[in-house]
Amino acid sequence: MPRWDPEAKERLRAAALELFAEHGYENATVTQITERAGLTRRTFSRYFADKRDVLFAGSERLPDAMADAVRRADSALPPFPALLAALVDAGDLFAGLVSHAAQRRAIIASSPELQERERTKLAAVTAAVVEALRERGATESSAKMLAQVGIAIFQTAFERWTEQPEGTDFAAQVREAATELAAHLTP
Amino acid sequence: MPRWDPEAKERLRAAALELFAEHGYENATVTQITERAGLTRRTFSRYFADKRDVLFAGSERLPDAMADAVRRADSALPPFPALLAALVDAGDLFAGLVSHAAQRRAIIASSPELQERERTKLAAVTAAVVEALRERGATESSAKMLAQVGIAIFQTAFERWTEQPEGTDFAAQVREAATELAAHLTP
Repeated sequence: MPRWDPEAKERLRAAALELFAEHGYENATVTQITERAGLTRRTFSRYFADKRDVLFAGSERLPDAMADAVRRADSALPPFPALLAALVDAGDLFAGLVSHAAQRRAIIASSPELQERERTKLAAVTAAVVEALRERGATESSAKMLAQVGIAIFQTAFERWTEQPEGTDFAAQVREAATELAAHLTP
Repeated sequence: MPRWDPEAKERLRAAALELFAEHGYENATVTQITERAGLTRRTFSRYFADKRDVLFAGSERLPDAMADAVRRADSALPPFPALLAALVDAGDLFAGLVSHAAQRRAIIASSPELQERERTKLAAVTAAVVEALRERGATESSAKMLAQVGIAIFQTAFERWTEQPEGTDFAAQVREAATELAAHLTP
């Protein structure tokens, strides 16, 4: 078996999500996960620090990835359109998560500890986006509001996207959520 | 001394905020707080469960208060204008906090534990507002997005309000933040 095996990682993730759904996140063990995946504990440790990490692996890269996407956006764009372009751009980061997204959401909703971890993750993304919007000329106060609103649009678009048949366009969901929000805000 | 003494509560709060700023939140003790306020530990316990509670007392009432404000809004209003009216309405709840708001923010920003508590508080408010918006006919997905955006507007307006001289109108800050956001979102 190769040292880095995307298929093993994916089998472990699928087994973990199944077991979390069946027994509850608190009750499922790493041993059960590895047994169901037909892999060893050593293989598990190659990909995940612990069972919580199955749900959050890679999220430490999100703040920089999202902020970099804001920085990369066309320099002629005002802050909000730049943020929207970045959200569309960042969708690629999540392409691999679509099939498990609804399951993951349900598990996170079941556990206060996981909800807290999810909020901490989003707060780190928001803070990084605030910095990137500041660099594009937004005031601190506007940057904070826009970053929070951007994350709300992203979450809405992502949730709707993962409830659609595969192949739906994430960019379209982002634009649709932003348009819907603009309509709500305009008297 | 009367059993419920708003002045004692206020002295304890002022002493706590001073000590948190001087020594750091982690290092300040309840004993120091009561000594500085010239009050007993027993008096402290009448108003606050612990030192963290000085920063969050009353916040358990926020979710219901905010959701009720959404429910009270004119039934002819669509979801977002109803939410805006509720935010303006809810500003009264915070009138007593204005003088300490900037200090409180700085202390919360200094401690990951307090930031987490603040996020948990806002998540509870958001969830309650989602329910109230659902009752007004918004879909689950729209209600979630609008509630998050409403909280972002509220935080922005509150922060700007507490940086203004006393007597500034909170309602005007809410409307201004919403108008600013709408302008950002409209191409």
